[in-house]
Amino acid sequence: MDRNKQKIQNALRKVRPFHDMGGGMFGQLEALVSCREYEKGRVLFLQDDPADYFYVVVCGWVKLFRETMDGTQAVVDVVSEGDIFGECGAFLDKKYTYGAEIVERAELIAIPLSFLSKSVEADGKFAIKMLDFMASRQSKVAREVESLSLQNAPQRIGCFFLKLVPSGQMTDVVVHLPYDKTLIASRLGMQPETFSRALRRLADGTGIKIRGATVEIADVQKIVNFSCSACSSGFPCKNI
Amino acid sequence: MDRNKQKIQNALRKVRPFHDMGGGMFGQLEALVSCREYEKGRVLFLQDDPADYFYVVVCGWVKLFRETMDGTQAVVDVVSEGDIFGECGAFLDKKYTYGAEIVERAELIAIPLSFLSKSVEADGKFAIKMLDFMASRQSKVAREVESLSLQNAPQRIGCFFLKLVPSGQMTDVVVHLPYDKTLIASRLGMQPETFSRALRRLADGTGIKIRGATVEIADVQKIVNFSCSACSSGFPCKNI
Repeated sequence: MDRNKQKIQNALRKVRPFHDMGGGMFGQLEALVSCREYEKGRVLFLQDDPADYFYVVVCGWVKLFRETMDGTQAVVDVVSEGDIFGECGAFLDKKYTYGAEIVERAELIAIPLSFLSKSVEADGKFAIKMLDFMASRQSKVAREVESLSLQNAPQRIGCFFLKLVPSGQMTDVVVHLPYDKTLIASRLGMQPETFSRALRRLADGTGIKIRGATVEIADVQKIVNFSCSACSSGFPCKNI
Repeated sequence: MDRNKQKIQNALRKVRPFHDMGGGMFGQLEALVSCREYEKGRVLFLQDDPADYFYVVVCGWVKLFRETMDGTQAVVDVVSEGDIFGECGAFLDKKYTYGAEIVERAELIAIPLSFLSKSVEADGKFAIKMLDFMASRQSKVAREVESLSLQNAPQRIGCFFLKLVPSGQMTDVVVHLPYDKTLIASRLGMQPETFSRALRRLADGTGIKIRGATVEIADVQKIVNFSCSACSSGFPCKNI
């Protein structure tokens, strides 16, 4: 098998609705797709564009956003390896409900949306998996609403950092910010100035040290105490 | 046909995934369900409870909420006639991802979640309809994230009022608040004090008059100018 084909197979098997897909359907899927590189800044599609493809992220970061009448962007999500996006287009008026822009050089697999709807219609077990995936996505967005409603700005940043801490590590952890601080601010629904102020308050409250794109966390429990009391999920986060 | 059966049939036919369901499957569904009244304050289930049923709202209002470790509630949604809730439980670890409480006396139809998953698996066309419904629900929650990120508090209240204005009416409209102001505040992610201040700023900016549970809007366009510039949907709202 050539390397590109192997890469596509590995990437698809990591994605939830596809990971235990039957051999026949998986073969059909493989034959339809290709893997391509995209440079930072490339806009893949805009909100309300007609939708033909959805995408699997092999590596890199992709920003999903909505734009208001006065030109301000709301960052709906920032997705990475193993995530899919654009799949709503298969079911909802065949239009994308958000725009997508590459924020760190990415490799993506594009899959025709028609494959998705045909597979759902033809294969009941796949339909259940797809609905399971959509339900978990919906639950994730409901947590966003909760966080934006109940956590203050420093708590939301603490929550973002906690999700970067490797499972089980509680002391002397160093995490690297996955993309630039302006985007993290937008992702958390904050203006850049609010983000800077909130970051200082978080550092004062938890003893973390921020050096460029690196965060040094001496005691993870301090961030848990600071952020997780204003959240329904507890720590470690459930259903992420 | 007895009146209760007729009521169930009418209510189910108004709900998106069921409205053009085939006669055979619809007959199976009808045989499984009953319609019951619930008093204000009744908690149907809590977040993380094992999920057996999902519900169709025939009339009344139901609050969907999540509760943080320190006991604060985030209102994820407030649903009414024609909405369904609890359906995520069919796909996601068989647990509810939010709690549900009756906020105004309601009539609900309870449907076993097993019916939903069996129907999705057995009937490809129904699976597509269910996915379409989940996609629209997801898109609605993504709009919430956008609104909480980009609209200020007075703009969010203006947006809430605009959704109550009957289609096409632009002058001298009177709308009635569907539930009490404390719940509206929570629904919009605000503390009650923030809500009161923001309501005054909205009234100053748009000339609306609030008398108890009634809002008098002389000029709808003034609220549109005030609120919709900070939103990607424009007016009238798309995909609601």
